[in-house]
Amino acid sequence: MIMPMKMLEENLNKHVALLLKDNRVLEGVLSGYDEYMNMVLDDVQESDEEVTRKLGTVIIRGSNVVRIVPR
Amino acid sequence: MIMPMKMLEENLNKHVALLLKDNRVLEGVLSGYDEYMNMVLDDVQESDEEVTRKLGTVIIRGSNVVRIVPR
Amino acid sequence: MIMPMKMLEENLNKHVALLLKDNRVLEGVLSGYDEYMNMVLDDVQESDEEVTRKLGTVIIRGSNVVRIVPR
Amino acid sequence: MIMPMKMLEENLNKHVALLLKDNRVLEGVLSGYDEYMNMVLDDVQESDEEVTRKLGTVIIRGSNVVRIVPR
Amino acid sequence: MIMPMKMLEENLNKHVALLLKDNRVLEGVLSGYDEYMNMVLDDVQESDEEVTRKLGTVIIRGSNVVRIVPR
Amino acid sequence: MIMPMKMLEENLNKHVALLLKDNRVLEGVLSGYDEYMNMVLDDVQESDEEVTRKLGTVIIRGSNVVRIVPR
Amino acid sequence: MIMPMKMLEENLNKHVALLLKDNRVLEGVLSGYDEYMNMVLDDVQESDEEVTRKLGTVIIRGSNVVRIVPR
Repeated sequence: MIMPMKMLEENLNKHVALLLKDNRVLEGVLSGYDEYMNMVLDDVQESDEEVTRKLGTVIIRGSNVVRIVPR
Repeated sequence: MIMPMKMLEENLNKHVALLLKDNRVLEGVLSGYDEYMNMVLDDVQESDEEVTRKLGTVIIRGSNVVRIVPR
Repeated sequence: MIMPMKMLEENLNKHVALLLKDNRVLEGVLSGYDEYMNMVLDDVQESDEEVTRKLGTVIIRGSNVVRIVPR
Repeated sequence: MIMPMKMLEENLNKHVALLLKDNRVLEGVLSGYDEYMNMVLDDVQESDEEVTRKLGTVIIRGSNVVRIVPR
Repeated sequence: MIMPMKMLEENLNKHVALLLKDNRVLEGVLSGYDEYMNMVLDDVQESDEEVTRKLGTVIIRGSNVVRIVPR
Repeated sequence: MIMPMKMLEENLNKHVALLLKDNRVLEGVLSGYDEYMNMVLDDVQESDEEVTRKLGTVIIRGSNVVRIVPR
Repeated sequence: MIMPMKMLEENLNKHVALLLKDNRVLEGVLSGYDEYMNMVLDDVQESDEEVTRKLGTVIIRGSNVVRIVPR
């Protein structure tokens, strides 16, 4: 058994891909999170249906997160 | 009487299929969960209306979950 | 006066039909629930607008539930 | 001043019409409720845009309720 | 400074118009409310895009309320 | 650093424009608020895509608020 | 590890771009925030699909926030 929050901890400073509720995907290095699944990603590349853009550091509000995939 | 959380516990390390609110289906091995129904799945195969993809390990935010079917 | 949670208790091990917010209907035997209306159903037959499928045991997240009809 | 929960209490064992967020209307006898506005209705007749059906007893999750009209 | 809940109190037994999230408007006499903005209205006239109907007394679940206008 | 609630306090008895989630804009004098961002506005002029109307005093449920702009 | 709230603190008095759930983007100087991610931005320029407008100071309700990008 691994707790979801523990799984986030194991992915600190590693590449992850976040899917948000609006279908946006953010890929970057997980540099922080809290108990609401608010997250800080570094070196972010964001993709939606139309374009991909480089964003650098991004703070994500946890209520928008669908799933997190370690890369 | 079996509590829903107890049912999740009984499915640890077993195959489950998760239906999410956006109609995405994730099938994989349940390796963790918490009281919000946040979950960790391993060896995930994800399907939406268009495609199926292999994702490996996935952390799912519980607020997106509709139902869980043990396989 | 009968409390809604007491009504669920009285339907343990009996047939119920659950309507979910996405218009899915799950019929099966209520084998568990908790205070959030998370539920465990056995011998489930699920119907949406298009098809009916047999699912066996299903764990439902309570936030998706609209109404429960004892059969 | 009458508290909304007190108003529900005064309608116990009386006919009410519930409007839900998906525009479904349930008419029946209010036999129970709790502080989340979860409710138990008996002798329910349910109507949506297309049809009317008889459902007997129904447990409604309070988060779906828009308004209650005593009959 | 007047607290929103105090403003509701000042409108007890007076005419108000409630706008709900589904664009329904309920006009009536405010006879009760609680801290969730659940409300009891008397002598209600309800209007949506299509029709106006007389409803008598109505209990409204606060989570559906957008704004309240004293008349 | 200024806390958002402190910023509301500084705008008491001043003109503000509220944007709501349904794209409604309410302009008026902020005469009260609470910790949920429920608000009381006086001398309100409300605009949606179609019309502008004068409403006088309005109580707004905070959960509908997107942003507040001091005028 | 950097907590998301700590990341906000580090961006006080700096330029940030907020994406809201309705696809609105607000760019400005972060002058305050609280634990709900309610925020105060100064010198705001707001863009939606159609236009860009200057708003000065804006208070944003945190529940509308998707992501924050330090500039």
